Amino acid sequence: MPTLIIKLIRALATSRPLLFATRAGNRAGMSDRFSFALNATDGKARTGVISTPRGEIRTPAFMPVGTAATVKAMLPENVRATGADILLGNTYHLMLRPTAERIDRLGGLHRFMNWERPILTDSGGFQVMSLAGLRKLTETGVTFKSHIDGSRHELTPERSMEIQRLLGSDIVMCFDECPALPADRARIAESMELSMRWAARSRDAFGDRPGHALFGIQQGGLETDLRAQSAAALTEIGFDGYAVGGLAVGEGQEAMFACLDHAPDTLPTDKPRYLMGVGKPDDIVGAVARGIDMMDCVLPSRSGRTGQVFTRHGVLNIKNARHQDDPRPLDDNCGCPACRGYSRAYLHHVFRSQEIISSMLLTWHNLRYYQDLMAGMRAAIAGGTFADWQADFHAARAQGDIEPL
Amino acid sequence: MPTLIIKLIRALATSRPLLFATRAGNRAGMSDRFSFALNATDGKARTGVISTPRGEIRTPAFMPVGTAATVKAMLPENVRATGADILLGNTYHLMLRPTAERIDRLGGLHRFMNWERPILTDSGGFQVMSLAGLRKLTETGVTFKSHIDGSRHELTPERSMEIQRLLGSDIVMCFDECPALPADRARIAESMELSMRWAARSRDAFGDRPGHALFGIQQGGLETDLRAQSAAALTEIGFDGYAVGGLAVGEGQEAMFACLDHAPDTLPTDKPRYLMGVGKPDDIVGAVARGIDMMDCVLPSRSGRTGQVFTRHGVLNIKNARHQDDPRPLDDNCGCPACRGYSRAYLHHVFRSQEIISSMLLTWHNLRYYQDLMAGMRAAIAGGTFADWQADFHAARAQGDIEPL
Repeated sequence: MPTLIIKLIRALATSRPLLFATRAGNRAGMSDRFSFALNATDGKARTGVISTPRGEIRTPAFMPVGTAATVKAMLPENVRATGADILLGNTYHLMLRPTAERIDRLGGLHRFMNWERPILTDSGGFQVMSLAGLRKLTETGVTFKSHIDGSRHELTPERSMEIQRLLGSDIVMCFDECPALPADRARIAESMELSMRWAARSRDAFGDRPGHALFGIQQGGLETDLRAQSAAALTEIGFDGYAVGGLAVGEGQEAMFACLDHAPDTLPTDKPRYLMGVGKPDDIVGAVARGIDMMDCVLPSRSGRTGQVFTRHGVLNIKNARHQDDPRPLDDNCGCPACRGYSRAYLHHVFRSQEIISSMLLTWHNLRYYQDLMAGMRAAIAGGTFADWQADFHAARAQGDIEPL
Repeated sequence: MPTLIIKLIRALATSRPLLFATRAGNRAGMSDRFSFALNATDGKARTGVISTPRGEIRTPAFMPVGTAATVKAMLPENVRATGADILLGNTYHLMLRPTAERIDRLGGLHRFMNWERPILTDSGGFQVMSLAGLRKLTETGVTFKSHIDGSRHELTPERSMEIQRLLGSDIVMCFDECPALPADRARIAESMELSMRWAARSRDAFGDRPGHALFGIQQGGLETDLRAQSAAALTEIGFDGYAVGGLAVGEGQEAMFACLDHAPDTLPTDKPRYLMGVGKPDDIVGAVARGIDMMDCVLPSRSGRTGQVFTRHGVLNIKNARHQDDPRPLDDNCGCPACRGYSRAYLHHVFRSQEIISSMLLTWHNLRYYQDLMAGMRAAIAGGTFADWQADFHAARAQGDIEPL
């Protein structure tokens, strides 16, 4: 049978994820508990659906980051319109302002920020290390000073679980510690082992909360055996999903991919695998090809504010003078409001004039690009054409941006 | 017959403006020329419809200001959703960046900024005086330095008409000169007379442009006789509408209202009357009561970025700590997204966190408040109940904001 026909049959046989996707859009098919169904694989790449009481999450999923209870420069209904099924919220920022207790009194993070679909919260650990002042790390946890007002705070596995419960998070992350790379093997091993002890404490503190999930976080840097040890420790404890942590911290794409060539394989196949803090479009595609189901990154939203634009043809900087008379959209294949309603010349003008609409339109475009990327991968994996899809992805990027007029 | 029944009959008899309003929303009933129909009066207050090829403008009309080809922090479709029929664009800003010639090459200001409904542009004169450096005023016009890059520019009546034509403005304003108040009578008279000579040159330069309107601008400060002389000069030249200029420049509400007690009466009754740069909600209501049909002001949008919020009950500052735990909306009677989706506590949080969504939501609310105010006045004038409406407006404001919880 010709390959094309085989692929077609396979695509029809595995079309359930797309039907699921449509039903998720209608808020139908919601579950009263957290579950993950794998619908198709293509090589190591996987596509499926995470079901939660707040809606379904089509995987591979990209989670826009809503640090301080907002995806910067976007209304939540517009984040949804880009195709996002789930947002990420930052425990570190929210515990400092407006505080988890205040958000709890106001009905939880979903109501507070007007986003009724699933929310994943990180544990706060990573941002204590990157943002806070005067940190002190012990077996118990971390004490630190707020970067906002200098006030003293403590985060422990137990306190992180409490904060994430007060926020009303649907997917809660274990409290972990993550060294910047490069770091020596002894430091990485010691840190991983501490994180595994904290994972057990996180599991105990989380308790039994039907409809809410707790994810463990694998550590171990770029050391294959430490990654395997960490995976074994986490699997022994038992989680609803497993994150690959400690990457995208300065090691570069080649090293990250080398790690992802084996790290996801050490995690249970029947649970979602989440690569934290990744990344650029080609990082994301490479991670999905290596068996990752979920990702988050500030890149599309942050770039929207700095004038960096992602398209099929790579990255362009709207500040560049070549755009100032260009009547064409950023990408004539894109259906976002920035591409449907505005020329590059307009976007250049409002960026140069430091108008807020520039951040609004470019963020919307970038988030839409990322979600279209995920939708394309989900369809290709379901259809068994992910290798071809990847070749097309890389070929389009290699072309570079359209020629100036 | 009891007064209430008389009012009811009158309301039914004059309900045409409301029908018109609905049809304008459907883009039906568009005219191929500029015209103004007065549908009802109540005391000196008027309601009617300005028809243009780009749609109808229900009067009294409030025009949000889109200085640099954007109403700051708003997408144009959302400005429309607040109820705006027309925007104002600033000639001074646009001529400097991105330049009128560039906007013309890109298809005009409407296409550039993705707003297909009517646009009024000012002449540039007022902002040369308030923003530019090293101004030199002669009979010919004004030379000045750009506040953006220090480049030299000239504005004359002829050049202002050319720029507004290149922008594709639907309502073009005469190039005028406007002294800050207080100023001595001789200076005001001299300036008014210069503006009248420039009005004649503007009229000549504008030429015959079917579907586009040219408005004259009355000057004369707070001097009753100079206002009358200016009105006579403008009427002699003949315009499609008449602005009351030179107010809201520091004279205070009492002095402005004293001027508006007579100035609009000197202008033709069958043309729209536009009060430039006004104002606070009570300024607007007082101006409409004195026969004004159109207004513009940066206040609702600028206040949205500084945390000042307009409601039926006056002004509140979202930065105030009293809001930080308040689960209630800004105004439970308001239908804007900020009031439908978010608590005061959330709006306080995102304002304090300097999140862009704060400017987006508060600007949307303020613009909606202003448009609801105009819609309320239009209905009350049409129904012959404007005096009662004004009493209710002032009574609700006198109550002040809702009590803290």
